[in-house]
Amino acid sequence: MNNKKSGKITAKENKNQKTVKQFKSVSATKKVAPILKPTAQKNNKKTLKVRFFGGVGEIGKNMTALEFGKDIILIDAGLTFPGDNMPGVDLVIPDVTYLLENKSHIRGIVITHGHEDHIGSLPYIMKDLSAPVFGTKLTLTLIENKLKEHKLNDVSLNCIKPGSVIKLGCFSVEFINVNHSIAGAVGLAITTPVGVVFHSGDFKIDFTPVNGETMDLSRISEIGKKGVLLMMADSTNIEIGGTTMSESVVKDTLDHVFADNVKKRLIIATFASNVHRLQQILDLAVKYKRKVAFSGRSMINIAEAAAKIGELKIPEGLIIDVEKTKSFKDEQILIISTGTQGEPMSALTRMASGEFNKVVIGKNDTVVISASVIPGNEKMIYGVINNLYRLGAEVIYESLEPIHVSGHACRDELKVLHSLVKPKFFIPVHGEYRHLKKHAMLAESLGMRETNIAIAQIGDTVEFTENTMKFGEKFVAGSRFVDGVGIDGADSFVLRDRIHLSEDGLLVVVVGVEELSARLTSIEIIGKGLVLTDAIIDEAKASVVNTLSHIDLRTVRDETELNGIIRRSIKNYVFKATKKNPMILPVVMVV
Amino acid sequence: MNNKKSGKITAKENKNQKTVKQFKSVSATKKVAPILKPTAQKNNKKTLKVRFFGGVGEIGKNMTALEFGKDIILIDAGLTFPGDNMPGVDLVIPDVTYLLENKSHIRGIVITHGHEDHIGSLPYIMKDLSAPVFGTKLTLTLIENKLKEHKLNDVSLNCIKPGSVIKLGCFSVEFINVNHSIAGAVGLAITTPVGVVFHSGDFKIDFTPVNGETMDLSRISEIGKKGVLLMMADSTNIEIGGTTMSESVVKDTLDHVFADNVKKRLIIATFASNVHRLQQILDLAVKYKRKVAFSGRSMINIAEAAAKIGELKIPEGLIIDVEKTKSFKDEQILIISTGTQGEPMSALTRMASGEFNKVVIGKNDTVVISASVIPGNEKMIYGVINNLYRLGAEVIYESLEPIHVSGHACRDELKVLHSLVKPKFFIPVHGEYRHLKKHAMLAESLGMRETNIAIAQIGDTVEFTENTMKFGEKFVAGSRFVDGVGIDGADSFVLRDRIHLSEDGLLVVVVGVEELSARLTSIEIIGKGLVLTDAIIDEAKASVVNTLSHIDLRTVRDETELNGIIRRSIKNYVFKATKKNPMILPVVMVV
Repeated sequence: MNNKKSGKITAKENKNQKTVKQFKSVSATKKVAPILKPTAQKNNKKTLKVRFFGGVGEIGKNMTALEFGKDIILIDAGLTFPGDNMPGVDLVIPDVTYLLENKSHIRGIVITHGHEDHIGSLPYIMKDLSAPVFGTKLTLTLIENKLKEHKLNDVSLNCIKPGSVIKLGCFSVEFINVNHSIAGAVGLAITTPVGVVFHSGDFKIDFTPVNGETMDLSRISEIGKKGVLLMMADSTNIEIGGTTMSESVVKDTLDHVFADNVKKRLIIATFASNVHRLQQILDLAVKYKRKVAFSGRSMINIAEAAAKIGELKIPEGLIIDVEKTKSFKDEQILIISTGTQGEPMSALTRMASGEFNKVVIGKNDTVVISASVIPGNEKMIYGVINNLYRLGAEVIYESLEPIHVSGHACRDELKVLHSLVKPKFFIPVHGEYRHLKKHAMLAESLGMRETNIAIAQIGDTVEFTENTMKFGEKFVAGSRFVDGVGIDGADSFVLRDRIHLSEDGLLVVVVGVEELSARLTSIEIIGKGLVLTDAIIDEAKASVVNTLSHIDLRTVRDETELNGIIRRSIKNYVFKATKKNPMILPVVMVV
Repeated sequence: MNNKKSGKITAKENKNQKTVKQFKSVSATKKVAPILKPTAQKNNKKTLKVRFFGGVGEIGKNMTALEFGKDIILIDAGLTFPGDNMPGVDLVIPDVTYLLENKSHIRGIVITHGHEDHIGSLPYIMKDLSAPVFGTKLTLTLIENKLKEHKLNDVSLNCIKPGSVIKLGCFSVEFINVNHSIAGAVGLAITTPVGVVFHSGDFKIDFTPVNGETMDLSRISEIGKKGVLLMMADSTNIEIGGTTMSESVVKDTLDHVFADNVKKRLIIATFASNVHRLQQILDLAVKYKRKVAFSGRSMINIAEAAAKIGELKIPEGLIIDVEKTKSFKDEQILIISTGTQGEPMSALTRMASGEFNKVVIGKNDTVVISASVIPGNEKMIYGVINNLYRLGAEVIYESLEPIHVSGHACRDELKVLHSLVKPKFFIPVHGEYRHLKKHAMLAESLGMRETNIAIAQIGDTVEFTENTMKFGEKFVAGSRFVDGVGIDGADSFVLRDRIHLSEDGLLVVVVGVEELSARLTSIEIIGKGLVLTDAIIDEAKASVVNTLSHIDLRTVRDETELNGIIRRSIKNYVFKATKKNPMILPVVMVV
């Protein structure tokens, strides 16, 4: 295989001949290839290695590799948004050192759905890797947009449909329709030489999905009956009992909102990628005779892309430019916006702070935030809600009304999955440690043996034969920070310095030293990010001068030693005076 | 009045003669003084001014002043913990400039209860103010501990009981028992020359409180019947319908936990100040024959203080030192710990990260987190929970079990309060803007006119006559940051610098300039918190040298101008090369 970066992006089905050959079946109807019988006899010594690059012990940057002999396939390639402890970092992506060292073995990258935590690192890793990418239509459309932004035009994108089976090296991958908060989500049944690996992807069981396509439980049941070696399954909602509500429920709530606000302008913020939610909102706009304006770049991009591929049905004349909304009456307008998480630059955040002159919020606005708060974003989104109220708007959000449903299975749905798949071994994925642990406990409660369940961490390899599972070698893995144009390691001094600077500030100590005599000729101390008085600075200067005057600088070995002497000369004094340990940055100028 | 800082702290009742004189009645039984008739006839021109120093538009640093003529009383003096946008800040306290300018008018500080957001700024403001402080026994005990830590030993602390009435200048303050998540919480009925002001404090209506003392609804009803000019009431839980569960409910859940874990060691984390919760936990320890060890400095301090004043009943021999727990069997031990919010230095956090060698967590531990997560703390506490699971412990927390109840009234309880008090005017307090707005809407739905309700912001004065309410002048107010030993304004450059440094890092550009010729003799560029290459630094140096070589430095007016020139010479290049805008810190050394 080993296909070079050659063609153009080809999100359209079957266009790239080179990769089409790999498809065992690309089928819209359910002509399903049988799960292959394991062919382990030829590979007695080889084991299936499942390697975790991300998505275990965290919610974010999902990426798992299956490796057998010289064949590697990747499942998903996601990113994480940085935490509060990562100031200045734009994005976090998995460390793919191992993949770079084994480039030529990668047979393909299989994507379960188009959320950022499953596709977001592709633009970064595809600069150095070349392998065909497989996903459903919407997934590929979103990936294509991303790659274009990064001027990556030669990645081979291959469109599959649920029911398709493709062959990637020794692996055969079957795609199975699942329900999720984005269209085109799939689970995977991967036949390997030692048995079938079932990966749920992110899923819920929606019996009344907006597009009518329920999760393919009967195919999953068939696969389960034939025997599954390993299941990896979504653990996000393991803490919630019962079942997740159907996406269709949201329509009823939103219908009430439309009915109760007939005289007002409506603004609905939602995730751009939740195409089914968008469809329901558009349908209501038609029903209540409102024009729709999209606001926010990602909303416009994704809505356009989804409409182009037919995932979103937009009646002619429904959409107007947001600039034009002012020429309509409030009651004729619905604005659909980004910003459900209070992202600082999003349309909704700028509306709320009065900085978005295309949409000026006032007393005749009702704003609906149709999304849940992702943990960590509470302060930002509540800040936006407070601002919207200040401007006189009514705001409807999740603590008040059921205007959002989750895309992830709750405990009872997970039980259904476990009892259909009946895997020999189980590894919970897509969760922080507590989620994985609780999911493992759920599997035990359904009859699995504790020894047949593994909780994996990033960098773990879990090895399988037809009958055994064990932890194998650790490999280099972890986080890489995308930071401006740089990409930096997680143990980065840069980040440690930033955190140090943000907590305790900085003192720059510049000393001039005469070249010949090595006498101190001048001293300057500048503080930043630190509450200082002139007296403190003078005292610190005196302390440096005093220390250096007792040393023959010609005996100092090098600058590092001199810097150390300068630092030590004021460190204690500065802490005593400020109760802070600022970064002390000595600069020695030999003049 | 104007009493000087003279006596020792006197938390014991009636000890300080000077302040005792101010008590109109200090009564354990309900010998209640009648609400005074307004005496506005003498003060025709004067209005009652209610000034908001904090606690409106935010949850935190509650502080409100009532002012009439030359009499000021303060209600509460709280702090807020800093947000993510305040790196390095320890605490946030109200700006009390106005009080410092009117020191001699302050007749007293009335504290509703002992939570940090009601008492926390006392140690800071009492360095510059002198006024007697009034509160119930536990409240004063907590204040006393704080003041001692700050070596403030001469604040006059005056113990009141629910039912007491004190006279402070023209104000008469009656204390009314309310239920809350701390013992000794009171509401206030303050008779002013223009009418009665009712302040709920933080409250819930608990019909089965642990100490048997329900909120004094019948007294509130009496006060309401006589006529209330203004009500200020807690808005924290306005978004939640129905009523808050009784604290007693927690005992049942915890009893199950004790019963289900008879063979395991139990560790319960809770708020140290929730004395009633502590009492219930201690009672269960007795029932299940476990010894109790307190862990965490604030837990030990508060439990000891509460026991000393009789608020916490601890049977002899129940408590052991946490060091001694190792000599008991797991099933004989209960550890009560701080750290419900995942605070980095708390006992629980250190146990979870394996850094607390007095308590080593393992498979035979069940950890209960008996508290809700304060918004903003999600990541920290879930980090602790993940770590506890990693060490093998079972963890029981709110998403899984009802092991905590709120201390604040939900919507139906607020309706009860409104219909008993029936105020002429209403100002919702203790909430972010959205809470205040929703509380205002609730009041309207109960029949109040919109014009009789005010939503106040920090720095607002609301003025009252017997029949009118209007917004008065704005006064200097806001936040002060306690930061190391410094206290800094909210618009501080220090903080802006820290945030800038944390997001974009720093470039120090040191140039040596020869004194006589004004020629550039040397250049050094040092980056911190920024992903840099040698090539970028060299290019930046060249850029500075190039710019300065085209300028006759003798024509440059001053250092500020030269610094500007240096900054501009590399700013654009650095952004292009790094996609970051680091702080550029030029240092010019004349040699």
